[in-house]
Amino acid sequence: MAKVAVIVDEMFEDSEYTVPVEAFRQAGHEVVNVGLERGREVKGKKDSTAVVIDSSVDDVRAEDFDALLIPGGYSPDKLRAHEGPVKFAREFMEKDKPVFMICHGGQLLVTADVLKGRRVTGWRSIKQDLRNAGASYEDSEVVEDGNLVSSRQPSDLPAFVEASLRRLD
Amino acid sequence: MAKVAVIVDEMFEDSEYTVPVEAFRQAGHEVVNVGLERGREVKGKKDSTAVVIDSSVDDVRAEDFDALLIPGGYSPDKLRAHEGPVKFAREFMEKDKPVFMICHGGQLLVTADVLKGRRVTGWRSIKQDLRNAGASYEDSEVVEDGNLVSSRQPSDLPAFVEASLRRLD
Repeated sequence: MAKVAVIVDEMFEDSEYTVPVEAFRQAGHEVVNVGLERGREVKGKKDSTAVVIDSSVDDVRAEDFDALLIPGGYSPDKLRAHEGPVKFAREFMEKDKPVFMICHGGQLLVTADVLKGRRVTGWRSIKQDLRNAGASYEDSEVVEDGNLVSSRQPSDLPAFVEASLRRLD
Repeated sequence: MAKVAVIVDEMFEDSEYTVPVEAFRQAGHEVVNVGLERGREVKGKKDSTAVVIDSSVDDVRAEDFDALLIPGGYSPDKLRAHEGPVKFAREFMEKDKPVFMICHGGQLLVTADVLKGRRVTGWRSIKQDLRNAGASYEDSEVVEDGNLVSSRQPSDLPAFVEASLRRLD
């Protein structure tokens, strides 16, 4: 079974955390909440879903995990203001490990500068950011390109979870 | 006296609206809140400052105003998901009218694709977005380049307001 890191901070989009995490756990995979500070509780922006950070991002490395999930909301923009989360996400891309990102999740990979020539989707407000980072933007419920699985918004979650689970088998 | 449009939506950074707007009004300038829907009340993300939208962005044009203020917070990301605010901001740039942006304000101009070759600053999380949009990023409390005045964060407000007021005289 796989070990999945979820990189998350305050104001994540609740369902983009809860739906994939529940699906991964039900399929028998291990989920570890990685954030800025171990033990801190962070909350979702809509339903105030509480998530306790299991590991500080500065204490872990991509090689400790099989895949990375980046939920959306304002969490990715908060994370990318710090060096640790950017470096952590970049490691998954460099090691070609599965990365699942939805909504604003792609902001973290823009700052990590790892999207040149990649096919992606994401929330419409970051379309130009993804293109300017060298990616080609597709307006689809899920885009799969190598190790990268991306979706636009909560209504894409069924397709996003299905595609992500396939990478963990 | 000048007529300044403030483009704003939900979750703006309170002080980045209130401090410049108060300074502009005290100096005798007129301030008009422009947003997605006339009459709607939008709120700040920290102190829930309430702002009523005076004009829908689709009912106004840059030529109706002398300058544009783009406060930060999550408001710019919400605005740029719609075509109207992006087009409105682009008009100010094309007409070389003063544009004052702070924090995440630059996101609106990234989507408007009007930053190539410009010197700017902004909140550190959007640094890479500004660079990818063709701008040169400077880590200063205020950057002035032609019609464009930009700052990074609330602590830069004194310098931001001083530079902006100079453009309205």
